[in-house]
Amino acid sequence: MSATATVHRTAIAADLPLPRGFACAGIAAGIKSSGAPDLALLVCEQGAVAAAMFTRNLVAAAPIQASRTNLARSRGHCTALLVNSGCANAATGPQGMARCQDTIDAVAAMLGCAPDAVLVNSTGVIGVQLPSDRIVAALPALRAGLTPESCGPFATAIMTTDTRAKACTRTVGSVRVTGVAKGAGMIHPDMATMIVAITTDAAVDAPTLDRILRRSVERSFHRISVDGDTSTNDSVFALASGQAGPCDEALLQGAFDEVCTDLALKVVQDGEGFERGIKVSVSGAATPSAALQVARTVAMSLLVRTAVTGGDPNWGRILAAAGRAGVHFDVDDLKVGANGVPLFEAGAPADSPLADRRAAFTSDVVHITIDLGQGSCSDVFHSCGLTKRYVDINADYTT
Amino acid sequence: MSATATVHRTAIAADLPLPRGFACAGIAAGIKSSGAPDLALLVCEQGAVAAAMFTRNLVAAAPIQASRTNLARSRGHCTALLVNSGCANAATGPQGMARCQDTIDAVAAMLGCAPDAVLVNSTGVIGVQLPSDRIVAALPALRAGLTPESCGPFATAIMTTDTRAKACTRTVGSVRVTGVAKGAGMIHPDMATMIVAITTDAAVDAPTLDRILRRSVERSFHRISVDGDTSTNDSVFALASGQAGPCDEALLQGAFDEVCTDLALKVVQDGEGFERGIKVSVSGAATPSAALQVARTVAMSLLVRTAVTGGDPNWGRILAAAGRAGVHFDVDDLKVGANGVPLFEAGAPADSPLADRRAAFTSDVVHITIDLGQGSCSDVFHSCGLTKRYVDINADYTT
Repeated sequence: MSATATVHRTAIAADLPLPRGFACAGIAAGIKSSGAPDLALLVCEQGAVAAAMFTRNLVAAAPIQASRTNLARSRGHCTALLVNSGCANAATGPQGMARCQDTIDAVAAMLGCAPDAVLVNSTGVIGVQLPSDRIVAALPALRAGLTPESCGPFATAIMTTDTRAKACTRTVGSVRVTGVAKGAGMIHPDMATMIVAITTDAAVDAPTLDRILRRSVERSFHRISVDGDTSTNDSVFALASGQAGPCDEALLQGAFDEVCTDLALKVVQDGEGFERGIKVSVSGAATPSAALQVARTVAMSLLVRTAVTGGDPNWGRILAAAGRAGVHFDVDDLKVGANGVPLFEAGAPADSPLADRRAAFTSDVVHITIDLGQGSCSDVFHSCGLTKRYVDINADYTT
Repeated sequence: MSATATVHRTAIAADLPLPRGFACAGIAAGIKSSGAPDLALLVCEQGAVAAAMFTRNLVAAAPIQASRTNLARSRGHCTALLVNSGCANAATGPQGMARCQDTIDAVAAMLGCAPDAVLVNSTGVIGVQLPSDRIVAALPALRAGLTPESCGPFATAIMTTDTRAKACTRTVGSVRVTGVAKGAGMIHPDMATMIVAITTDAAVDAPTLDRILRRSVERSFHRISVDGDTSTNDSVFALASGQAGPCDEALLQGAFDEVCTDLALKVVQDGEGFERGIKVSVSGAATPSAALQVARTVAMSLLVRTAVTGGDPNWGRILAAAGRAGVHFDVDDLKVGANGVPLFEAGAPADSPLADRRAAFTSDVVHITIDLGQGSCSDVFHSCGLTKRYVDINADYTT
């Protein structure tokens, strides 16, 4: 395998700069039968402060268990993040753990760091053993391809059913925050979603980085859903090289929020079978959790999602979904609209012209607004129409 | 409108006898633009003991509110049940309530009973005003068509996206229990599902009938899902004429259970876009609720449901869904199989031949078995594969 031939250096959509101190590479290691890039390495030679959020799924993949252990042992420090696509290494038993550890040891030996300083993740089909020999064999070529110039090679090599690489970068003063994400299915909040790696050159300690990451994830990746399913391999990593010096926490938080929100929307817009977006804004809720609960229930309703796919202004389904969200409200106080067109108010259908209602449901993003009339809390949730292509993609995945 | 021309007396699939004391009719009243039967009447001239379970959706339709009130006022007695398809009369405000009451008053006047003795329900599109004038105009023809011979006319006239009428009958000694159901979408447990009417000629008091009904519904309609959505109009009615005399409660419960379970499976098998069934049996759970929670989560996972549609033995999705169900288990104790073929055990993939796994996932019903290895509780949940036809049906419903 020739490094120069297979290292993937460009990815138009994700060709964004990395913060100082980082380099990355992506390569086709032969894990995917398609020959597409499937092995990604992110390195901070000087060592980075690290934080991560992992899936809460009980069936956690081998690399999730290994990364959780390494992060605890290193007390939030990391030299390298190795991610492969094409195989999830989940539900693979002791053999899966051993193969995962083989890749960790090989990266540590190559870079001259402690195995605990290596974080890993895998994404792809569950229940298949990791071809760790191919990964280990590809490491020299992967290292030779490391570039500090762009996050594109990493963003590209972690893709599965994604149709495009996803990356976002922001600067605050001299500090840069760059994130990459993969994810198009099995997208849902509450257990950390998809695989995301966020790098920054800000100098922060591990507890601060962890705090910033958790806040940003709550505001972004925990507000999107493609199908309600969560994977065995979800994780969000944050690495800080410190090479740009200290940064005000609020400003750094703002940059993390922007990067995470942008990536979360990119994930939804690349959701499997995506045709039309859904944004649900709930206001007037008595509590923040009530607002989130209604927004999430409406955004995830299969009947709302199929109506959006059909461009069908069947707003009764919005009411039906809100009414089963487990949140109290009075129907007489309820106001529902879409893209500014009133649909329901004062306990009865609004008399908006059908043409306006149709226009709202055929726009690129159907923005559903729901005022519960109960209080002053609000929240926003994003999803997308459920399409026949989603069924096609997922009815034929392993075979 | 001619009664003889439009009363629908035969429906092969649902042509089953009614218990003594009941008569029913179905008619095309012009609510559906298709001209299909859309108005159903069930009458017990001597008066029946009645019980009902209604949707827990906060956005309860006008007929749900009216029936709830009437049942409370009559203390569990009923002379007639009027159900229309083609319009849900939900989210229709005071006008919707007034139109609903008009139909109740007209039925009471026609039959010479108190308005409180009339129960009603409507099913169809939400947010459209009920054409109550057409319903009232059709009542004489509907009454003229009343037959004690078959539940078919009623079962047929309450259909919406159903492809076939659904009915079931059982006898226990001299007592008969006959149930009809409509439902194909917006099917989900916990808030009563679909529209079901169960009749019996057993002599029971209202509290006993209510108790029997609640137990049977918990074991049947609360164990199926087509799409996770619940409607504003769901309800299950039970009416007992008493004309066959008393019946042992356990025996009557058994007959109700059988009728409800049969109807529940008929509803799933007629689920919108149905191609292949899913049955999830969970055993070894620590608590009954844990068993139900895992069974329901796996049965409703879009990724499991699309894998089943594709006949794809992608069993990792079963593990991923079980792992996010919010129930504790140890992956090493977990056993997962399908139609008798082991898929996962002892913390690792089972080595069943691929041909066997494929055969399991391409059978008419994919029976997924999950042993959590935690205790002795079990439960069963039914759903169906998610298909492109489901999306087609629901992307174009009102328009």
